[in-house]
Amino acid sequence: MAGNTFGTIFRFTSFGESHGKVIGGVIDGCPAGISLDLESILRDMERRRPGRRTASKRKESDIPRFLSGLLDDTTTGAPIAFVIPNEDAKSDDYEYLKDLYRPSHGDFTYHKKYGLDDHRLVHRASARETAVRVVAGAIAKQLLGRSGIFVAGITSCIGPHAIERDYSFEEMELAAITSMQCPDKELSRKMKSFLTATRKEGDSIGCEVQVMITGVPAGIGDPIFNKLQASMASAMLSINAAVSFDFGSGRHAAGMKGSEYNDLFTVHNGHIRTSTNNSGGIQAGISNGEDINFRVVFKPIPTISKIQQTVDRHGNPATIKGRGRHDVCVAPRVVSVVEAMGAMVILDHMLLSKVSSL
Amino acid sequence: MAGNTFGTIFRFTSFGESHGKVIGGVIDGCPAGISLDLESILRDMERRRPGRRTASKRKESDIPRFLSGLLDDTTTGAPIAFVIPNEDAKSDDYEYLKDLYRPSHGDFTYHKKYGLDDHRLVHRASARETAVRVVAGAIAKQLLGRSGIFVAGITSCIGPHAIERDYSFEEMELAAITSMQCPDKELSRKMKSFLTATRKEGDSIGCEVQVMITGVPAGIGDPIFNKLQASMASAMLSINAAVSFDFGSGRHAAGMKGSEYNDLFTVHNGHIRTSTNNSGGIQAGISNGEDINFRVVFKPIPTISKIQQTVDRHGNPATIKGRGRHDVCVAPRVVSVVEAMGAMVILDHMLLSKVSSL
Amino acid sequence: MAGNTFGTIFRFTSFGESHGKVIGGVIDGCPAGISLDLESILRDMERRRPGRRTASKRKESDIPRFLSGLLDDTTTGAPIAFVIPNEDAKSDDYEYLKDLYRPSHGDFTYHKKYGLDDHRLVHRASARETAVRVVAGAIAKQLLGRSGIFVAGITSCIGPHAIERDYSFEEMELAAITSMQCPDKELSRKMKSFLTATRKEGDSIGCEVQVMITGVPAGIGDPIFNKLQASMASAMLSINAAVSFDFGSGRHAAGMKGSEYNDLFTVHNGHIRTSTNNSGGIQAGISNGEDINFRVVFKPIPTISKIQQTVDRHGNPATIKGRGRHDVCVAPRVVSVVEAMGAMVILDHMLLSKVSSL
Amino acid sequence: MAGNTFGTIFRFTSFGESHGKVIGGVIDGCPAGISLDLESILRDMERRRPGRRTASKRKESDIPRFLSGLLDDTTTGAPIAFVIPNEDAKSDDYEYLKDLYRPSHGDFTYHKKYGLDDHRLVHRASARETAVRVVAGAIAKQLLGRSGIFVAGITSCIGPHAIERDYSFEEMELAAITSMQCPDKELSRKMKSFLTATRKEGDSIGCEVQVMITGVPAGIGDPIFNKLQASMASAMLSINAAVSFDFGSGRHAAGMKGSEYNDLFTVHNGHIRTSTNNSGGIQAGISNGEDINFRVVFKPIPTISKIQQTVDRHGNPATIKGRGRHDVCVAPRVVSVVEAMGAMVILDHMLLSKVSSL
Repeated sequence: MAGNTFGTIFRFTSFGESHGKVIGGVIDGCPAGISLDLESILRDMERRRPGRRTASKRKESDIPRFLSGLLDDTTTGAPIAFVIPNEDAKSDDYEYLKDLYRPSHGDFTYHKKYGLDDHRLVHRASARETAVRVVAGAIAKQLLGRSGIFVAGITSCIGPHAIERDYSFEEMELAAITSMQCPDKELSRKMKSFLTATRKEGDSIGCEVQVMITGVPAGIGDPIFNKLQASMASAMLSINAAVSFDFGSGRHAAGMKGSEYNDLFTVHNGHIRTSTNNSGGIQAGISNGEDINFRVVFKPIPTISKIQQTVDRHGNPATIKGRGRHDVCVAPRVVSVVEAMGAMVILDHMLLSKVSSL
Repeated sequence: MAGNTFGTIFRFTSFGESHGKVIGGVIDGCPAGISLDLESILRDMERRRPGRRTASKRKESDIPRFLSGLLDDTTTGAPIAFVIPNEDAKSDDYEYLKDLYRPSHGDFTYHKKYGLDDHRLVHRASARETAVRVVAGAIAKQLLGRSGIFVAGITSCIGPHAIERDYSFEEMELAAITSMQCPDKELSRKMKSFLTATRKEGDSIGCEVQVMITGVPAGIGDPIFNKLQASMASAMLSINAAVSFDFGSGRHAAGMKGSEYNDLFTVHNGHIRTSTNNSGGIQAGISNGEDINFRVVFKPIPTISKIQQTVDRHGNPATIKGRGRHDVCVAPRVVSVVEAMGAMVILDHMLLSKVSSL
Repeated sequence: MAGNTFGTIFRFTSFGESHGKVIGGVIDGCPAGISLDLESILRDMERRRPGRRTASKRKESDIPRFLSGLLDDTTTGAPIAFVIPNEDAKSDDYEYLKDLYRPSHGDFTYHKKYGLDDHRLVHRASARETAVRVVAGAIAKQLLGRSGIFVAGITSCIGPHAIERDYSFEEMELAAITSMQCPDKELSRKMKSFLTATRKEGDSIGCEVQVMITGVPAGIGDPIFNKLQASMASAMLSINAAVSFDFGSGRHAAGMKGSEYNDLFTVHNGHIRTSTNNSGGIQAGISNGEDINFRVVFKPIPTISKIQQTVDRHGNPATIKGRGRHDVCVAPRVVSVVEAMGAMVILDHMLLSKVSSL
Repeated sequence: MAGNTFGTIFRFTSFGESHGKVIGGVIDGCPAGISLDLESILRDMERRRPGRRTASKRKESDIPRFLSGLLDDTTTGAPIAFVIPNEDAKSDDYEYLKDLYRPSHGDFTYHKKYGLDDHRLVHRASARETAVRVVAGAIAKQLLGRSGIFVAGITSCIGPHAIERDYSFEEMELAAITSMQCPDKELSRKMKSFLTATRKEGDSIGCEVQVMITGVPAGIGDPIFNKLQASMASAMLSINAAVSFDFGSGRHAAGMKGSEYNDLFTVHNGHIRTSTNNSGGIQAGISNGEDINFRVVFKPIPTISKIQQTVDRHGNPATIKGRGRHDVCVAPRVVSVVEAMGAMVILDHMLLSKVSSL
């Protein structure tokens, strides 16, 4: 249910299609009395913006317009609705696709689900939809920041180019202002060249994003179906093109022994801490006070400029070749989307933790 | 919210602790008029049973007792409640742990969340809880089976021992009757020896489970936050010790090009199909009619017989050494739990797909 | 939770304040492929419009603008967002209230709940909010109409002037085009004069609305907490100023005997029917195929032009006297709001009834 | 959805049929660390018990057995499951009804909804189900009592015999130990005689229950769809046989002027209070700190010993005459059920109010 709504207490509803005049969202359950820092929202929007270069000027189309829920930029507890104009929408770019099912796109599955034979139907599946998540996530980040909780994501891998060591939260945070959203300068250069080469080939490429959330107190989360990692996995796999989620030592745990993996307890400055963090900050579904960290892998963007075999809506064989503007990799733009979803998950669990007593 | 309830239409609520007399569950939203095959429930229970050997006799303690929702084994549409006795509960086995936080266990985080200083609190986090999921999942499987949808899971990796090729649904299904839940006999022997050796070392080991779901029609799922893969990820990460989820080509997608990854459409016997299945049966959050497949990685069981450093509830350094009965790997027993959660996700989305028209 | 969202499958989220530029809503879960009749939406909007006279021209401000979820006026299954401009908002009308708690208004309780000391906070409680419900309800009515289900409401009482007999569905339906929304012409005249006199006195008056829903098939609803009458009661009491709900013989049942109240079964044209309808079309939480009927009582509008004692935000005694435009009775305008909520309840239960089988 | 679950944070799931071995429930979301007073649960159970006389001894069948969620009678935060045995179930009492639709009962509507042709299906609609609500409500009352919130209900009307004045909370509370649950002794005698006479006639009678909840702080509730009165109305109409809900001056408001109805603010001992309470403690969906009060009307019990016309499952005319044990009026037994549901609503909103800030 609630297919377009995310969260339990801090509830975000997304609406709008890439072919429409606007996309938008409604946040219900935002606490009252928070003075919103609109600049920080725009900063995250800028990181996700199409055609963005590090020094690029902000385009009008990336500025959300708030319709409700604020008095002089302060939240009132009422639902916060906003819209973002789709200024650059050129739906005729897609006219040539009208009858074709694009491989690994949603054309076919949307047709099957909704029963409507209109190629514009799938515009709801556009990455454009994630822009509204960034707005809601930026607001969530501000609320978290007031409790000393911060979120930083980086591009950890693009094709063959992957980071080779762990980064501190501060290093990760600094990557936000770089074009590749990657803390390693040399690697960033390689990623950039690789993306350029891939674009020239008319191809696309997969990638991985890594996130750290710092400052979450111990005791946040839930023990059974609503485990912190379960909420986080759901949030991450709800992002377009996401195909894998793991946290802490993650997939490497399949080959690890308990004596290697277990995070031993120790006392540090009077606080109970763990000496390693293979658990990624979560034990038994509940935060343990260590940094929360996880990784999300994204498949290559399905639209490529190479000729591909496909079929049309009538089942006839056809070929297809992507046209128009499209990225070749969801990174680095997706990093701020991943952060946004992560922030909403933590905020929702923080708010839920308030209801455990009268 | 709903921390102990899973699902939207087919809703499963889990209750009970490993120290109590029973564990149990309530299924709300099960369609009326379904004649339950209790034998198939017991078969799945048997696969998850502690201390199980292939030929072992069923223990009384693994038989669920139904309290409501059935008339002569036929569902009535009313909530189906059931309990499973905890016959072997020996809570004094845990007395020695009373004051200690076990590394990578929930003792510390439960204490932080609930504020109660009682070591029995964490018994809700016991793997025993997953037994009730198997009951609910077995019922979900029966309903799915009536629509031609079937679920098969296997142990795909234990420590260094991993499967080396893809298996057909039929091969995977046959593994259910083997002790390792693995379709490769030679590999099963290696896994078994490895588990024995690990137990002798007093250590534990991680593993991976792989699942295939066949027969899901195209058009099931939801496009935004409730994507089929998002629901599945949440279900899987809600299982004790699960640390990673990926579907289709999954984590390998980070290094793949679009031209490699994209599943080209083709026509097969008059049906639109894809010639590969890197998408794991899901595109844009919605099933495409191909087999759904995914993998879940589990960390090593935290209780080991080696001496580990830890602290007690007062923050004093201490050492701990696991006693009593405990597994060294969640596989093969966890395979039926993974299948159960997978079945509930698909059933819930199948039921949700009914509401899309009047 | 979900304080600004209504419904389970057909989910309506409301946003916006009377002091803002727009109010609006998002409908999630509307089936795809429905061609919306915008004229019928505007007709219901017109019935709720402030300052409306029977023959009045439509004001621009009452026309919803759809932002998403439609392709050429056909629903796509994506969320349908819309806004309605607040053209006539004159927030300085309320400046004189800045420091005063208006008796029986939300000023005091909003202040207590949200902790913000701003008199504009309560603008979310304005009857203006109900305009968006009428839009969503009109869409729900269209869907219901396709299944032969129709909703009609009338003003059944204003102060001392109440209807004196039952009306047929057709008579009730015709009342929609009258200024008092009342099927009795003579009574309508009395109501109108009474409202004029009340306005002159500077006072306001309570009222009652009666609704009939015809065509609901037997078997819709749910037996325990989600009884059809429970959902309906919740929907009705969520309307501003509503203070009482009863269905069928309703409150008169307290004095009735079983032998009077029971609706005896009979066979009519081969269909099982009841010979009376004291149950108001619902038995044990589930529709029985007879007309569903209920009544909602509304308190007098709290803003009056008489001088009233009150206190200010600092707890000092003060007097208050309403200024600006305000109605003296929620009827007849509220009738279309009651119908809208009733339609959404029935539609939601109709959709829920689809999930009872695979 | 969630047809058998009530509440958002404090979530209660009900299961079991009157023909089964037990009925039961699961409470999820109960705060940890609350020491349950089992005696107070039994006291409320006793008030609802069938065949109860003031001085009667407790029957075994009314004692809930807790299965989970408690450690030494203290809540742990885990779901609290319990069962109550159905010791006196005599399902052959109902054999004669096998083929008949009882007038104003759920036989017909259950058959239509669930499609199963089994007369035992409707046993879920038995008043027996409400026993589990009393257990959950008694736990909710204990939690509320810790915050100084108390709930008292009385039988305010049975047929022609109604209370004639308002009662204080203390007077209402004392009625709990009387057989009629009515604070007026003379009236109680009349009610009792009336019930006896009605039983002799083979008939049944409607009634009304009135409730007061004291100690709810100002600011609890929600402004739009989840108004305190909307939640309360839903809870009350979910009780078997309930047909009307109103709060404060309720239905009388239809004939009242604003100048009569408005509750003027005043300052009392330094606190802002209202001089009257026509609003029943709720303004704009949110508590204002005054006593919350409301009334629920119940229809006469449909099973009567008089001969009634009906039809059988094949549509043939038939006559029916109730046999076996059955009450003639839901009061006084229903009073504790009404209190229970009222307590759960207030507790849920109290817990929800905790999430409004970080």
